[in-house]
Amino acid sequence: MNDFKPLCPTVDQRIRESFAAQSMMTTLGANMMHVAAGATEIHAPILPGSRQQHGFAHAGLTFAIADSAAGYAALSVMPADHEVLTTEMKINLLAPGKGELLIAHGKVIKPGRRLVIVQADVFARNDGKDIHIAMLTGTMIPLAPV
Amino acid sequence: MNDFKPLCPTVDQRIRESFAAQSMMTTLGANMMHVAAGATEIHAPILPGSRQQHGFAHAGLTFAIADSAAGYAALSVMPADHEVLTTEMKINLLAPGKGELLIAHGKVIKPGRRLVIVQADVFARNDGKDIHIAMLTGTMIPLAPV
Amino acid sequence: MNDFKPLCPTVDQRIRESFAAQSMMTTLGANMMHVAAGATEIHAPILPGSRQQHGFAHAGLTFAIADSAAGYAALSVMPADHEVLTTEMKINLLAPGKGELLIAHGKVIKPGRRLVIVQADVFARNDGKDIHIAMLTGTMIPLAPV
Amino acid sequence: MNDFKPLCPTVDQRIRESFAAQSMMTTLGANMMHVAAGATEIHAPILPGSRQQHGFAHAGLTFAIADSAAGYAALSVMPADHEVLTTEMKINLLAPGKGELLIAHGKVIKPGRRLVIVQADVFARNDGKDIHIAMLTGTMIPLAPV
Repeated sequence: MNDFKPLCPTVDQRIRESFAAQSMMTTLGANMMHVAAGATEIHAPILPGSRQQHGFAHAGLTFAIADSAAGYAALSVMPADHEVLTTEMKINLLAPGKGELLIAHGKVIKPGRRLVIVQADVFARNDGKDIHIAMLTGTMIPLAPV
Repeated sequence: MNDFKPLCPTVDQRIRESFAAQSMMTTLGANMMHVAAGATEIHAPILPGSRQQHGFAHAGLTFAIADSAAGYAALSVMPADHEVLTTEMKINLLAPGKGELLIAHGKVIKPGRRLVIVQADVFARNDGKDIHIAMLTGTMIPLAPV
Repeated sequence: MNDFKPLCPTVDQRIRESFAAQSMMTTLGANMMHVAAGATEIHAPILPGSRQQHGFAHAGLTFAIADSAAGYAALSVMPADHEVLTTEMKINLLAPGKGELLIAHGKVIKPGRRLVIVQADVFARNDGKDIHIAMLTGTMIPLAPV
Repeated sequence: MNDFKPLCPTVDQRIRESFAAQSMMTTLGANMMHVAAGATEIHAPILPGSRQQHGFAHAGLTFAIADSAAGYAALSVMPADHEVLTTEMKINLLAPGKGELLIAHGKVIKPGRRLVIVQADVFARNDGKDIHIAMLTGTMIPLAPV
């Protein structure tokens, strides 16, 4: 994965603007903490309104930030005028989302002109310890400007 | 799927109480519209706060209600004192989540003592027309009471 | 799925020739039994050489014929000069592949110019009874001629 | 992954015997090259009879050795009298299986009493260079002796 183009300020800004335009990320309290060429990191608190019936993070929260983390990792390796769409994503849940904060790391496994294969891993921070709670693999489609 | 036990009022009530306890469903404005033995239907409006950068439903919304729909379909075929956990779920996105409302249908593909295989399909209602926007397959684990 | 183009003899023949060129299908004893617009059916005996350690069908056999069934279902709805590649496929195994014969049904869930979403279901015939042993969903990429 | 039990000779032998009993591995010419606690490596030549219509490795070959590699990685971290079954596996194909040999690395992502989450990566060796052609994630179920 050392063949990624370096992340120029224009791309960095585009990604942050696009993330800011995802109202779901605001609803979930999510923040884009880090963007690099082929890698991103998103944090989201496990808000009172983001839980399942036992008080842990809802899988929908875990999925939402992982999908965004993976999507922006893909966008970071595309030409500056392209968009990206998720076509498929599989999540394996490894442990309950217990704690204060979820941390999603997105990365590009295989960039491509037609498809970009991505991975995301989500950790739950509980009393200062990070537990690996989910692993996702997926496929993003680059969309050229119309 | 004609070997499902009929859905008794106790199970129906347990499912509705569990759903009501998922604060994420409240945040997303989701409602459990229908529960039967091995099948459920959840509706969620595409709220201003549930969108991606182009104003369509965020994949996190689509996933969240599909996961709940599939999970409660699984719960409906289990002994009345059991819980259920998602262990894996794959989503294929078929079309943008464009419109006013998402509708998730969950169903059991294969019930089992150790694992329950489930499917969910999500439709977006746009000007009265329902478009199939996502197909999910997954695995739920029954948890016996401790 | 009633918007599929009818399957013309040219496409039917292309699919059967392509299938015949897959030496893996010959090794596994697989036969293309049926091709329609958006749907196929492949049969494969559970040969002595296609088994796992308990004598049941190896998941590799189940996957191989399901992947081919789904791929040719996708090819059947594409322009006659296109090729198709699997980009991702998930299999949920529902029961052991016990019996004499595996039967894979492939179908198109959502045709598209850039991607075709497919499903396959595999049954094991044992003493004349067909058991649903696997469900697969996947994504195929159409390739235009160079 | 540093909490795996060390691989004792009994487990190593059980795994090799189980692998030898998978007739599909013999049909495909596959060999178990390496077994450690939580990790395995399987090699398979791209035989004349293991190909798709363009002469590359059939996805069924790639899947079959990856599934076995992941399954035996899971078995290596279980109690010595247990068996393991694949319940689901997703494959993302990254590049054509072009060359002489496929190499599958299986590893355990998350061991567990009820489920073991696994990953496999497959490489194609072509003129001495290894290309990453597939990434798989899946779930194995431990089965205690009856």
